[in-house]
Parts: sequence; structure tokens; C-alpha cells
Amino acid sequence: MLVPESASPTRARVLALTESAPFQRVIIALIVLNAAILGAETYPGVMESWGGVLETANAIIVAVFVIEIVLRIYGNGAAFFRDPWSLFDLFVVVVALIPTGTGSEVLRVLRLLRVLRLLSAVKSMRLVVNALGAAIPGILSIGALLVMIMYMFAVSSTMLFADMRPDAFGDLWTSNTSLFRIMISDGWPDLVVPMTQEAGWIAGYFIVFNVVTTFIALNLFVAVTVEAMNRRHEPKADLAGGHGDERADDVSGEVLGELRALREQVARLEDRIARD
Amino acid sequence: MLVPESASPTRARVLALTESAPFQRVIIALIVLNAAILGAETYPGVMESWGGVLETANAIIVAVFVIEIVLRIYGNGAAFFRDPWSLFDLFVVVVALIPTGTGSEVLRVLRLLRVLRLLSAVKSMRLVVNALGAAIPGILSIGALLVMIMYMFAVSSTMLFADMRPDAFGDLWTSNTSLFRIMISDGWPDLVVPMTQEAGWIAGYFIVFNVVTTFIALNLFVAVTVEAMNRRHEPKADLAGGHGDERADDVSGEVLGELRALREQVARLEDRIARD
Amino acid sequence: MLVPESASPTRARVLALTESAPFQRVIIALIVLNAAILGAETYPGVMESWGGVLETANAIIVAVFVIEIVLRIYGNGAAFFRDPWSLFDLFVVVVALIPTGTGSEVLRVLRLLRVLRLLSAVKSMRLVVNALGAAIPGILSIGALLVMIMYMFAVSSTMLFADMRPDAFGDLWTSNTSLFRIMISDGWPDLVVPMTQEAGWIAGYFIVFNVVTTFIALNLFVAVTVEAMNRRHEPKADLAGGHGDERADDVSGEVLGELRALREQVARLEDRIARD
Amino acid sequence: MLVPESASPTRARVLALTESAPFQRVIIALIVLNAAILGAETYPGVMESWGGVLETANAIIVAVFVIEIVLRIYGNGAAFFRDPWSLFDLFVVVVALIPTGTGSEVLRVLRLLRVLRLLSAVKSMRLVVNALGAAIPGILSIGALLVMIMYMFAVSSTMLFADMRPDAFGDLWTSNTSLFRIMISDGWPDLVVPMTQEAGWIAGYFIVFNVVTTFIALNLFVAVTVEAMNRRHEPKADLAGGHGDERADDVSGEVLGELRALREQVARLEDRIARD
Repeated sequence: MLVPESASPTRARVLALTESAPFQRVIIALIVLNAAILGAETYPGVMESWGGVLETANAIIVAVFVIEIVLRIYGNGAAFFRDPWSLFDLFVVVVALIPTGTGSEVLRVLRLLRVLRLLSAVKSMRLVVNALGAAIPGILSIGALLVMIMYMFAVSSTMLFADMRPDAFGDLWTSNTSLFRIMISDGWPDLVVPMTQEAGWIAGYFIVFNVVTTFIALNLFVAVTVEAMNRRHEPKADLAGGHGDERADDVSGEVLGELRALREQVARLEDRIARD
Repeated sequence: MLVPESASPTRARVLALTESAPFQRVIIALIVLNAAILGAETYPGVMESWGGVLETANAIIVAVFVIEIVLRIYGNGAAFFRDPWSLFDLFVVVVALIPTGTGSEVLRVLRLLRVLRLLSAVKSMRLVVNALGAAIPGILSIGALLVMIMYMFAVSSTMLFADMRPDAFGDLWTSNTSLFRIMISDGWPDLVVPMTQEAGWIAGYFIVFNVVTTFIALNLFVAVTVEAMNRRHEPKADLAGGHGDERADDVSGEVLGELRALREQVARLEDRIARD
Repeated sequence: MLVPESASPTRARVLALTESAPFQRVIIALIVLNAAILGAETYPGVMESWGGVLETANAIIVAVFVIEIVLRIYGNGAAFFRDPWSLFDLFVVVVALIPTGTGSEVLRVLRLLRVLRLLSAVKSMRLVVNALGAAIPGILSIGALLVMIMYMFAVSSTMLFADMRPDAFGDLWTSNTSLFRIMISDGWPDLVVPMTQEAGWIAGYFIVFNVVTTFIALNLFVAVTVEAMNRRHEPKADLAGGHGDERADDVSGEVLGELRALREQVARLEDRIARD
Repeated sequence: MLVPESASPTRARVLALTESAPFQRVIIALIVLNAAILGAETYPGVMESWGGVLETANAIIVAVFVIEIVLRIYGNGAAFFRDPWSLFDLFVVVVALIPTGTGSEVLRVLRLLRVLRLLSAVKSMRLVVNALGAAIPGILSIGALLVMIMYMFAVSSTMLFADMRPDAFGDLWTSNTSLFRIMISDGWPDLVVPMTQEAGWIAGYFIVFNVVTTFIALNLFVAVTVEAMNRRHEPKADLAGGHGDERADDVSGEVLGELRALREQVARLEDRIARD
């Protein structure tokens, strides 16, 4: 990020510090340590004997994160708030500071987002996420198609099977969950087989559903992957292609230049002979 | 769509209206609203308290759709009936007008096709469906191969296992359903494992079936995806390629032109010298 | 196929007949009809009322197939026995002639291969099968790798779990079946979960197995698909490429030709001036 | 491998022997035989009647392997220890020599690595493994992303569901196993369905988990496959590309050469005329 020219030298120095390799390595190490502590805390035995230590370590790490964010905001100024990765880091730190006295489960889970700071801290991972993200707009239409098909089948399954199997197709959300299970080939013994025994055509209905959704879902996944990989390879390809074209143009240009020079030479020759 | 030159100005104005962005945005909004209502109707609680309102809303939306179709038929004339997407819209609206007094389940399900009008109304989705559809002829042979293999295994499984497991391989359709479950890796605990305990080779039979059909099905899906993606990228590639070729041809043509001009110049020179 | 020059005119006419479009259309229709009869025979009800008719139809169709093969052997001569697709057709017809009095199940199943005659009779399907088949040598190494990994895990699972679960890992073949079920993500509730409760590391063992084999199997499948698709597109690409190259060469060749002609012209000019 | 120039002629002859085709064919045959024996030993019946013979065969094969390794170390010298495949062969032979008196299971399983010597002995398989291995660094970031996502979900699932289902989400490792089962679409009937009945949103939680991890895992697998296949095709492509460029350059170079010669010719002509 560029520092505005009017920035004070202190500010420039703070920015240089937060972007220096050792500083970033310390932050990455703390994120990993923090993730490990969050994992260790899920073992009740560990919490009993080491609970205090882990709590303290957690508090220290959060404190360091707060300082880091403050330094980065000071160093970058308004630019900090224009970078989505920076905003994500800020959000994670703010969540860490909300007191958990209310014991909210959601808040405890949101703290896990701290692990995702690794994405913003390691450059090569930021690139992967960016590539995957950038591929999404290109395939939104296929995604919308999948959602529509799922929705239609959820409504029609509820219409058709709500009386037969109220536990699995009682309302839209239940139907949706059941259909997701059938799409990932996991709901057949529980859901489809008993219903097939009541009416044979139901197997056909779910086979069509399974083939159509698997087809679109696979299409979607393969499309994202291929778009993301193309995006990664494109700059290289463009460079090579551009270079190649340039060289071809250079040669052709040289040939044309030589030819024009030659024509002038011959024209001069003609003039001279004419003058003789 | 082009209006025939002899079309009256009213007709041209109606066509312009139905193809204007605001008009189409209203229609898309109504389709989405209609889909939401169809979903809400599956919740018995919602139907009890809001049933009347939803019914009325539904009727109004259908009325708007009827008006829209009539305007589009008037505006486009015969061209309306040559566009498959338009015919699909007409079919959906006609289905909506059939009275449900007979309480036919099929009719109620067909009404859900209204959700698919989103495909014909949003251009980018129409393109995706067209691309997927256009890829199908190219892979019909692999699809036929898969159907043949499934059919052969269904017949042979019925021959071999009808006595052992009449519930799962009693006749062709039941065998087909059971084989589909085995293909999507979901029928093993129910179907294959008990049979394997009677004769060990049966496991081999179903492993071969599973590998062969998974292989062909994956082949089919990947082929469709790749064909569809190529089709989307092709026009762009063709353009770039054509442009590149053209430019290369331009340069080479210029070189040749210069050379021929030069030869004429030298020939003139020769003549002149010869004449001296 | 080419008829040797010394072939009698009768022979040539027979060959022309067997390769004529109407003849082949009749054969394809009979294959499809035969397949439908084989399917219908699996319904006991159908067999009771129509059994005799179906049997007779079957016999007639087989008789036609015998005549067809005899004609083709006569028409093609030795060339018939060099074409694998023809040999396959011959094998299928021979199997159909073996009397089933012994009631062999295997023989009855082999008769189903008649359905596969569709592959040899329809040209576009023959191409798909050829393409898939031709892709196989190129990926034999990955296939061998998969077989090796499966074998190693089968032996080691038998070593490790034969005492714990003799029903699932008692010997090599049983282990292989169980591992196949785990590979296709279908053996977890039956096999892995109870064993995991005895020793936690077993879950890790099977997760590694699952990831490694899924990875290699997917690699294998994608590789076959891509190789087969490349093979289909290659001739076209080669043609286009060759054409492009040729054109570029043509232009460059023309330029060079013009240049050489020009140099000769100028050389003649020099000579003439020198002679003056 | 290159023999240092100072190597004695005996050493060179030993190296030539170990790298000769017949020697390598014998070794490959012994590896396959050894693998078959290891498989046969898992059948208790076979062990009872043939146990002694198999043990002896095994001992002889291991002895041959020891001699082979000693010859290869002598023949290659220090170079042997720089080739990872050779080190792998050495490791396998050393493991075979550790006495199993202690009856360690791990040791018996490690012996199975002998089967993998086939990878190092057959060149085309070594290439496949190298290609797959070489593709890994390029996709480490996606792999790390998958591990992070799995870890986050394991921690959050333990937080959320440890009380509801201690058997499946009691601690981090148990959660991880359960999530792997859900990722491969196999844990739904056991794990997700009963929990969904307690709280509907849990189905959404696991659907998100399933879609996200399947997406990243597929991405990872496809990326490895494509990278590995590109790597295999690259040298050929580079060659062809290089060759094509060279030819194009040759032609252009020839044209330029001709042109320059022509200009000199014309310049000489000008001089001569000027001198006249």
C-alpha cells in the first residue's frame, strides 16, 4: 500500500514495521498458536488442568492482535478501510473483544474466524481465495439454476409426499434437507426405498432428481475449478503470448523497414539514371 | 425479434413495450414472488392464516402473465410461435388456467414450471441452458452406451438374482432402481452385503458394475461440462484467432505488395537502362 | 473393407449388400427388438401369457443373425477374421446357438452380449468405444498404481483386523470387498464406526485409505476422459493446425520467391550496367 | 547414473549388470512373487499346508534383494545415496531384515512396502509417481485451505454438539472423524438426521460444511490431476512450440538475409552508376 506523500515519517515507519517480514511471521505464528489453543480447549481434561494457562495465553494473543490492528490502521490511514482483507482482520479482533459473559454460543463460534486470519496473513493463500472468489461471478448463472431446480423439487416433493412421509417432506425446509441427502446419495435406504414400495414411479422421480442435480452440481464445481485455474495461469499465458506477438511484429516490422529503405534506394538509382 | 415492415405502429409499440427493461423487470419480480408463494403454500400453518391472500395474489399474478403473453403474441406475430422459449412461456400460462377442481396432483406439480419461466426471462440463464443443451448432441453416444450397459446389467441381475432377492431384483424396473442405488454407492449395506455372504463372486459382479458405470457416467458428465464450457469460450477464441490471423495476413500482404512494387520499379529501371 | 481384386462378382455383390444402409438398419432394428424381448422375458407374467411368441421371435432373430454373419464371412473372406468387431459379432452368434438344455446361468447371461452388438452395428458408438479403449494404454500406469495400493491395503487390513472383524477382513477377497465399500464411501457405518470405537487410530487408517484411493481413482477417471476427448478432437486440431502452417508457409514462400526473383533482376541490371 | 571416471572396471561392470534389462526383469518378477506370497499368507488354510514353503521362498527373495542392494551400492557408490528411489529400496530391505520375534504388528505391515518397490523398479510407474508428486507443491495452498476449514469445523462442531452427541463430537479427533464421514456423504443417517430433529438449523450447518469441503476437495483433486497431466504433456508441447518458433524464425531470418543482400547489391549498383 502506498503512503500519501504528506504522511509523517513516524507513520511511514509504523507502516514499514507492520509490513516487515519478521513482524508478519510473528503474527502468523500467533494465529497458529491461537488455533491450537482453541482446539485444545475442546478437550475437557485439558481444560481442567491447563484451563488458566490457556485463558491467559489467549488474552495475551488477543492483546497483540489489537495492537497490530491499531498499528496497521495508524500506518495505512484510510487505505486500511478500503482493503477487504484488512476489514476482515478488524472484524475478527472486534469479535474477540466482545465479553462472553452472556455465554452466547454464536459468539464462541465466531471466535473461530480467528483461524481464517491465516488466509489474510499468508500471501499465497490470499491468492488462492481470491482466485476462487473471482471465479464465482462467472458461474453465478449455473448456481442460480441449481438453486431453482432444488427449490422446484422441494416444493413438488412437499406437495406430493407430505402425507406419505411428514417427517421427511412435511414442509419446505424439511424437504430441502431430505433432497440434499438424496442428492449426495445418502437418503436412499431411509427415504426412497420405503416410498418406492408404495408406488414404483417414485423411484423414477428421485432418479431424475439425482441425475439432474448431480449433473448441474458437478458442472458448477468443475466450472469454478477450471475458471480459477485459468485465472491463475492467464497472466503467464498473456505475457508469453504478448511477447511472442511482439517478436513476430518486430521481425515483420524489420522486413518492412528494409523493403521501404530498398525502394527509396532503387528510386534514387532511377532518378540518377534518369538525370544521366 | 424483427417486426415485419408492414406491421402497424401500434404493434411495433407493443413489441417495444414487452421488450423494454422495466417491463421485463416487473415480470421477473412477479415470477420470483409467485415462486415464493408456491413455497409458502406448502406450510399448512401459513395456508390457514394467509390462504386467501396467497390465492388472490396468485390469481392476480396469473392474470398479469396472461396479459403479458397476449401482448407478446400481438407484438411478435407469427415469430412468437417460432421461438421455443416463447412457446414454453405460453405452455406454462395455459397450464395455470386449467381449473384444478379435479384436484389433479400432476396439474399442481406442472404449475411449478412457472418457476422455470425465470430461465426464459433472464438472458444469462437462457444462455447457460442453451450451452448445456447444445452440448448434449455431441455426447449422445456416451449416453446411449450408459443406457445400454445399465439395461444389460438390469436384465442379467434379474436373471441371476430374482430368486435370491425378489424384493430388489424381481423384475426389470425393480432391478434398475436397485442398480441405480448401487451405482450411486448407496445400496451396498442393504443389497450387496447380504448377497455376498451367499456367494463370494457376487461382490465381484457388483464391483465391476460399479466401476464401469461410474466410469461412463463421469465420462458423460465431464464431457458435457467441457463441451458446454468450450462452446461459451469459442466465440471469443474465434474472434481473437481470426483477428490475429488477419493481422498476420495484413503484414505479410504488405510485405508482398512492397516487393511487387519494388520489382516493377527495378523492371522500369532495367527498361530505361536497356533503352539508353 | 476392401475386396481383393480376384473376388468373384457374387462375392462383391454380397459384400455390398451387407454394407448397404437398409440391410444395416434392419439388423440394428432386430438387435433392439431382441434386447426388448430379453427384457420382457424377465417379467414372469409376460412369460406365462406370451412365452411361446417371444421364444419364436427370438429363434427367428437368431436365424437372421446367423444368415447375416454367414453372408458377411462370405463377402469379406479372410478380412472378416481380422476385424475385432466382426469377431465379437461371430462370438455372440455362436453363443446364441449353444443349446441351453443344460440350463446354464452363465450361458443365459452371455446371451445378453447380443445387446452389445449395437456397439458394433452403430458407427458413432463404435467410435466412442474405440476412443475410450485407445485412451487406456496411456493410463495403464495409474491403473496399476491403484491396483497396487488396493492390494497393499487389502493385505495389511487382513493382517491388522482379521481377528477383530473376521466377517469383513477375514481373508484377502473379503478385505478387498470391504475396502471397495469404504472407497466408495459406503462401508463407514457398518465397518469403520464400530472398529473406531475399539481403537481411535483406525479412523485415521481408513481416512488415509479413502483419500489416497479416491485421489488415484479420480485421477484415473479424469485422465481417461481427457485422453479420450483429446483423441476425438485431435484430427480436427491437426487439420486446422496443418492448414494454418501451410498457409503461413505459403505466404513466406511467396515472399522468398519474390525476393529471389528480385535479386536476379537486380543482378541482371548490374551485369548490363557493367557491360555498358 | 554416471560412474565417476576413476571407478574401477569391476565397479563399472557391476553397475552395468544391475542396470541391465534381464537383471531388472528378474527383480520385478521377484517383487511380484513376493507380493503374491504376502497375500497368500493371509489365508489361514494356505498357511497351514504351505506355511513352511512360503516362509522359505520369502527368505530366499529377501536374500536376493539384499544382494541386489549391495551390488547397487557398490556399483553406484555415493550416487546411490543421493537417489530417493534407491534410499526407499534400501529402507524396504532393512525393514525386511529386522527380526519379527517381538511380533510387532507395525513391522509386519511395514513389510508390505516391499510391494511398492514395484514403483521404483518399473520406470513408467516411477514417472507417474514423480508427476503426481511434482504437482503437489503447486497445490499446497488449496490443501492448507482444506485443512484449515476442516479444523475450524471440527472445533466449532465440538463446541456446539459435544453435549448433544458426545459419542460423535466429544473431542477434536472424534469430531474430525465424524466430519470426514459427513464430507464423504456417509454420516447423514447416523449423525445428522437425529440431530436435525432436535434443531432444524443443524441441517443447514452440515449442508454448508458439506458443500464447502466437497467444493475445495474436488478443486484440490482436479487441480492435482490437471497439473500432473500438464507436466506430462509439457515437454512435448515445449518441443513442438520451440520447433515451430524456430521454423518461423528461420523463414523470417532468411527473408531478412535476402533483403540485406539485395540492398548491398543495389548499393553496389548505385556506386557503379555514380562512378560512371
